[in-house]
Amino acid sequence: MNVEIWSDIACPWCYVGKRRLEAALAGFEHRDEVTVTWRSFELDPGAPRERDVDGATHLAQKYGTSREQAVAMQDRMTETAAGDGLDFRFAIARAGNTFDAHRLVHLAAEHGIQDAMKERFMRAYLTEGEPIGDPAALERLAIEAGLPADEVRDLLAGDRFAAEVRADERTAAGFGIHAVPFFVVDRAIGASGAQPPEVLGELLQRGWEASRPKVQVVADGEACGPDGC
Amino acid sequence: MNVEIWSDIACPWCYVGKRRLEAALAGFEHRDEVTVTWRSFELDPGAPRERDVDGATHLAQKYGTSREQAVAMQDRMTETAAGDGLDFRFAIARAGNTFDAHRLVHLAAEHGIQDAMKERFMRAYLTEGEPIGDPAALERLAIEAGLPADEVRDLLAGDRFAAEVRADERTAAGFGIHAVPFFVVDRAIGASGAQPPEVLGELLQRGWEASRPKVQVVADGEACGPDGC
Repeated sequence: MNVEIWSDIACPWCYVGKRRLEAALAGFEHRDEVTVTWRSFELDPGAPRERDVDGATHLAQKYGTSREQAVAMQDRMTETAAGDGLDFRFAIARAGNTFDAHRLVHLAAEHGIQDAMKERFMRAYLTEGEPIGDPAALERLAIEAGLPADEVRDLLAGDRFAAEVRADERTAAGFGIHAVPFFVVDRAIGASGAQPPEVLGELLQRGWEASRPKVQVVADGEACGPDGC
Repeated sequence: MNVEIWSDIACPWCYVGKRRLEAALAGFEHRDEVTVTWRSFELDPGAPRERDVDGATHLAQKYGTSREQAVAMQDRMTETAAGDGLDFRFAIARAGNTFDAHRLVHLAAEHGIQDAMKERFMRAYLTEGEPIGDPAALERLAIEAGLPADEVRDLLAGDRFAAEVRADERTAAGFGIHAVPFFVVDRAIGASGAQPPEVLGELLQRGWEASRPKVQVVADGEACGPDGC
């Protein structure tokens, strides 16, 4: 069964959603038959490599609130994340364009370490204050996660996997996905947002029941079988 | 849109079905967006490389009829095939195990000439009296269809694509496919047997309508969007 999650890296609810999916999978009977694929979704495709104002100021500008109110919003998010075992540090976060990070997540998929790469980038951005759009930081983090240094450098110097990131985003648009995380099972049923583990568990269960092979036969005619034509 | 056809090579209705699918596709508005994949199905996996009795005798033994009655059955099939522009010559057919031919059809898919390879084998068996289980004949036909000689020889000397042939057959079993040809659109709807082009055309149309992206959202929760979290 294929579980695809559209998400961004600079996305607090996406990291919370990742933990909740992990909890749901841990309790899912058929977890060994589940393939998880992280799909690219940029919340701010036009972002510069590194944003020149801090997150709280950016938030305040966006919502027309005071900086104090924005910090209070971040604090509530931090509290929620702590409940899921995550340590968010918005005060040191360095936001920026996530396109290159998404390309590296695609490369990691090819090497069988996609989940580890996604996790590394999320932690780097939301906990460690790493500049998520900075090529040098991305290079270091990607190699740390286990990607071959030469491939990482080649990718960052060129446009490898750019088409795949855009294809993920086109698919998301086709599915009507406008906010992330968004969980999809076998391209048939989905859940939007960082659902509690029990809701994601139910999604897995429903997906499992729907995924047993079946083809609706709409026409039946002359054929050859083991016993003849 | 993905159209998969489970079929055997030594299978008269499969070749007729191939022509009818081609006719259906020619009249299908979205034919440029259709990918056709030939899936392996062996009607007689236990067949020897070459059967030691001719087809009519084999048929008569199988059905407990006279040889004359078997020839009459073949004649009716030949007549039907002629109506689809095919020239069946059962009198010279040399039946045998099709496992290696299926493996070569998989190799041909990798080279982008799967349809041509399938067509070449079907014509070889049903029209030209080529021994369909004979490695030397397969090698010649595969190279003629455009496959690299070294890869063809390597394959015939080893077990390349054996797993893929068996995987196709397991998928067929999972779908409840016991007779071929069997046409499946996007693993969702299917048609069994060599349907007339208009029925296959309807299958394509129904598949097309069903294939527009849609995900049923079963839960909606906290998420980040372009306008914030």
